Amino acid sequence: MPVHKFAFADASLERSPGQDGDIFAGNVLDQRHGGPVTIGFGRYGPNQILEETMAVHDTMVILSGNITVSDAHGAVTAGPGEIIAMQKGDKVTIRSHDDEVVTAYVTYPHWQQPDA
Amino acid sequence: MPVHKFAFADASLERSPGQDGDIFAGNVLDQRHGGPVTIGFGRYGPNQILEETMAVHDTMVILSGNITVSDAHGAVTAGPGEIIAMQKGDKVTIRSHDDEVVTAYVTYPHWQQPDA
Repeated sequence: MPVHKFAFADASLERSPGQDGDIFAGNVLDQRHGGPVTIGFGRYGPNQILEETMAVHDTMVILSGNITVSDAHGAVTAGPGEIIAMQKGDKVTIRSHDDEVVTAYVTYPHWQQPDA
Repeated sequence: MPVHKFAFADASLERSPGQDGDIFAGNVLDQRHGGPVTIGFGRYGPNQILEETMAVHDTMVILSGNITVSDAHGAVTAGPGEIIAMQKGDKVTIRSHDDEVVTAYVTYPHWQQPDA
């Protein structure tokens, strides 16, 4: 497979599963491309909350804004250029702050987008 | 495993294998932590060239600077907030431009740092 480049504009954002907030994600590379990981971009509006039990290992790179992820062990907050790593099975609460948050994500194994 | 947060300053940078240029990488999460992926940060000085046959699937998120990756199929250039996805087995040439480049990376499977 050739080397791929992806920008935020390449992502077809869909509302994140199981919630009706201002939280969207869009895969740019996934099982349709044959590799082992799913790659995409996410966007959280200001002051959004997402509670989730992780179905996959998910690495988020924060591109803009600040985001806090808490679990049973505590909470971490990350901003632009920082990484948050969540593991399959983790029960997490993800919170955006006063600004919109944009993330890049890599999941293993593939994370299936729900049908829109 | 608890949720982790990583910043560039958390990476212990080592010279990238097989070259003596101004190209460094440092894992922040890898096989020692038990998950399936390796996460880290990379830094390329200006105008560096790295030729590499990919030992793993490698997703790079560009945090600063601009980088061009070429393979047999062509070349892509990415800047801040953009992603380059390279597949295991790809023979690539990675070039930084006039500015330093900082990247976040996620590899599957684990990418073993050589002994320093």
